[in-house]
Amino acid sequence: MTAGPPVGGRHPAVWGDPAQAPTAQEREGLAQLLRARFPDAALAWRDPVDWRTVALSPARLRAPHGLREVVADDRATRLLHARGRSFTDLARARAGDYGSPPDLVATPRSRAEVAQVLEWCADAGATCIPFGGGTSVVGGVTPPAGDRPVVTLQTRALDALVDVDVQSQAACLQGGATGPVVEQQLKPHGLTLRFFPQSFELATLGGWIATRAGGHFATGPTHIDDLVEAVTAITPQGRWSSIRLPASGAGPSPDRLLLGSEGILGVVTDAWVRVQPVPQHRARRTVRFASFAEGAGAVRALAQSGLQPAGCRLLDPIEGLLNGAGDGTAAVLLLAFESAWRPVDADLRLALELCRDAGGTPDDAADAGAGEAWRSSFLRAPYLRDALIGLGMIVETFETATTWDRFDRLVEHVADTTQAAVTAMCGDGIVTCRITHAYPDGAAPYFTVIAPGRRGEEPAQWAQIKAAATGALSAAGGTVTHHHAVGRDHRTWYDHQRPELFARALRAAKVAVDPDGIMNPGVLID
Amino acid sequence: MTAGPPVGGRHPAVWGDPAQAPTAQEREGLAQLLRARFPDAALAWRDPVDWRTVALSPARLRAPHGLREVVADDRATRLLHARGRSFTDLARARAGDYGSPPDLVATPRSRAEVAQVLEWCADAGATCIPFGGGTSVVGGVTPPAGDRPVVTLQTRALDALVDVDVQSQAACLQGGATGPVVEQQLKPHGLTLRFFPQSFELATLGGWIATRAGGHFATGPTHIDDLVEAVTAITPQGRWSSIRLPASGAGPSPDRLLLGSEGILGVVTDAWVRVQPVPQHRARRTVRFASFAEGAGAVRALAQSGLQPAGCRLLDPIEGLLNGAGDGTAAVLLLAFESAWRPVDADLRLALELCRDAGGTPDDAADAGAGEAWRSSFLRAPYLRDALIGLGMIVETFETATTWDRFDRLVEHVADTTQAAVTAMCGDGIVTCRITHAYPDGAAPYFTVIAPGRRGEEPAQWAQIKAAATGALSAAGGTVTHHHAVGRDHRTWYDHQRPELFARALRAAKVAVDPDGIMNPGVLID
Repeated sequence: MTAGPPVGGRHPAVWGDPAQAPTAQEREGLAQLLRARFPDAALAWRDPVDWRTVALSPARLRAPHGLREVVADDRATRLLHARGRSFTDLARARAGDYGSPPDLVATPRSRAEVAQVLEWCADAGATCIPFGGGTSVVGGVTPPAGDRPVVTLQTRALDALVDVDVQSQAACLQGGATGPVVEQQLKPHGLTLRFFPQSFELATLGGWIATRAGGHFATGPTHIDDLVEAVTAITPQGRWSSIRLPASGAGPSPDRLLLGSEGILGVVTDAWVRVQPVPQHRARRTVRFASFAEGAGAVRALAQSGLQPAGCRLLDPIEGLLNGAGDGTAAVLLLAFESAWRPVDADLRLALELCRDAGGTPDDAADAGAGEAWRSSFLRAPYLRDALIGLGMIVETFETATTWDRFDRLVEHVADTTQAAVTAMCGDGIVTCRITHAYPDGAAPYFTVIAPGRRGEEPAQWAQIKAAATGALSAAGGTVTHHHAVGRDHRTWYDHQRPELFARALRAAKVAVDPDGIMNPGVLID
Repeated sequence: MTAGPPVGGRHPAVWGDPAQAPTAQEREGLAQLLRARFPDAALAWRDPVDWRTVALSPARLRAPHGLREVVADDRATRLLHARGRSFTDLARARAGDYGSPPDLVATPRSRAEVAQVLEWCADAGATCIPFGGGTSVVGGVTPPAGDRPVVTLQTRALDALVDVDVQSQAACLQGGATGPVVEQQLKPHGLTLRFFPQSFELATLGGWIATRAGGHFATGPTHIDDLVEAVTAITPQGRWSSIRLPASGAGPSPDRLLLGSEGILGVVTDAWVRVQPVPQHRARRTVRFASFAEGAGAVRALAQSGLQPAGCRLLDPIEGLLNGAGDGTAAVLLLAFESAWRPVDADLRLALELCRDAGGTPDDAADAGAGEAWRSSFLRAPYLRDALIGLGMIVETFETATTWDRFDRLVEHVADTTQAAVTAMCGDGIVTCRITHAYPDGAAPYFTVIAPGRRGEEPAQWAQIKAAATGALSAAGGTVTHHHAVGRDHRTWYDHQRPELFARALRAAKVAVDPDGIMNPGVLID
């Protein structure tokens, strides 16, 4: 058995490209900032446990002859596929706890090889876990402990641009293409998917589809769902391919059953997606509000206006400060319009009128750099999170969505409950909130927790905080997830949220395409 | 057993309210118009066979005691629920052929009574057919012939406005509410669903959801899918209710499995839908194009522009003439913008620029009444169709959707194939086309056939034409239906279109919620 395809030089306990990790100097700068807010925190830097020293059981199965070229059993590959990228995953991995790493990692290069891997898993009584960028923050790619051997199916070798239809503004891409690979391949055609989740650097198109990821647009096509034209998945029973259509009324949408299926039905190998010309016109402004609730009123007006701003992120005062978009005294709305063919200044003017009516104060146009500051810190955040974790902090996010009638109460209840849990578990800590996506009938608030942890106990501390927070948002009428998926971590609450009869239907659908139950067991349903 | 609730004075072989049927004078006017185009056609008016004289087998089952108040077995009610409203349904019913009318018609007044009806059907080995306005044009509500007794479940007693959330611009309505009932109930709140399919007068919210109906908006939220926030259905295994959410990423959408399920999983009893304030600002213009293909180019530019016109219907020259929107020499685009809070003239100006770039000639603003002419003839069309059928004409429509790269070829291929079939079957006839809905990646062409039939053979003639047309559009990459649903009539082609593994999953899902297979058998799957 060979070492298999390279895993891109990634470190199994940190985010992304190790070369981009914060330097010792940057870490010290961060520690100083944190000390001002958390004077009692130790904030001593700790490197991750050397992954080469971690105990690792031998693989419990071997690849069949025909697949050896694409199956790896080396330590680095197995550990890199042992966990997703939630706070808990990273904190545990840094401490040398890799849970139950997969026995083997297969990196098929074609639909046919994907099918072969699934056949092999079924024959061998193995579990198969589809894995794109491995950026799940909900335990979506975590091998279950137990007697069944586990093969993680890494999709990254399937990352080609298959076809482009410029006339229809659509492209067919393979499911393993990461954000940058998608954009690099579309660029020569003057096109872009404009799908920029925080996981952009590592996450894949197939993963976005499997988890109903949320992207760039704050209004309108917020989820990848809205950008999908057709999907091909390989299931244990064979290929599931829909035909390319801009819209259809022929029965329940086959694509919509794959969207959000989180690997329990099959592996998304390729999809036709809606793309667009690169925007040529942009207009952007920040608007300050006396309170988050006042800002939320403006977001509601904007979402109901039909103006469809591309950017409409509302940061609470502390988020504004942390992200360099505000001074900590006001909530900050980052408002942006874009178009490939027409000026959007008039849209921005109308939007600013709505903001003023809602009590907002637009910043001077010259100060519009706050939007840029936000963007760079947004994509840099996962690297900074690593630094914070190394300094002993608990740092994690969670999100939900609810209708406007319940919005203010939900935000207050969730923030208060989470803050109380943070204080109880950590003595101190920050809970912040932003709106990431907005709809005519509601919005998605996104919470961040930063608190000093007790070394070695951080995952347990976070589990208590997370349970309190998710309980609170579920009770207040929010979804367990707006765009982070269900995975294994949200099961308790998801099981209450989804209609029981839908769960029965989904279980039956799964049995129909995965009769041996090999695909990502424990996610969504049992 | 009582006669059950009234059926609104409807005639079982004609559309809608008999009081609105064309008068003898109007019919004669129509006949004269037709004579000019079809000089060889007889065009002699024939009244429908008196439905009171039609042979009708006695009902094969009786309602249980607790349901007698809501179950009818009278002739008028049974015949009214014997067919949908396709050309074939109406032509056959006019000739006294009501197929296999349901044995009984139940009109439950609550979710609980719906559940009781389903329990009774399961116990009695009866088939249950959910029936809203009965406007299916695809055999969606036709009782199958056979030994199993049939109970049609009429939802019209469930037509209340349950709740309104003005802040979130959402309302909860019962599934049996027709278009006018929906709008009447929302009006006091200053709100509207703005969902105006041609079946508006009779069709119901539950039926729209079950069939993924297409509505008012030519771009953006074209299907009812886009307006649904949560759905409750009663299945044979109980209640399936999703929670109200503006958006969610928690697993595959439960609502999207009910949307388009065409009654095979359960009965949609109520739903939260997105509503909006009544538009205060409107801007409208017609634009002429030398050809349909040139006009389609403009529609593509508009759909890709982000301007999201509410109206963007392109009529081919003959449709333009027939609808009073053109003179028959040019394709006509009916373009309309609307907003509840801001002027939309600037949007219209930008849209007209795009139209000019695409070769179009906007009409003078003063001539903008063409849009009004179109609208009134649109909603009057089903009544006129009755008159045409009575005069011996074959008159029917069908629609599809495809991506832009295949659009022109599909329209040409389908029009040519259909025209050839019409000529072969009828000697003469008109095939027209319009675009009803447009997307960045494609559009929905909608075809109308008008041809002189041979008395008594019209349904057989149409069946040949329909088979040729559907075969052509399927072969050219179109969906078997954009918004008319699959029903029993589109099964052959649908079975090829949908992924086979999705069909397996859907069958399994159905068995999970309808283990006795009582719900609308033969629709979508077997």
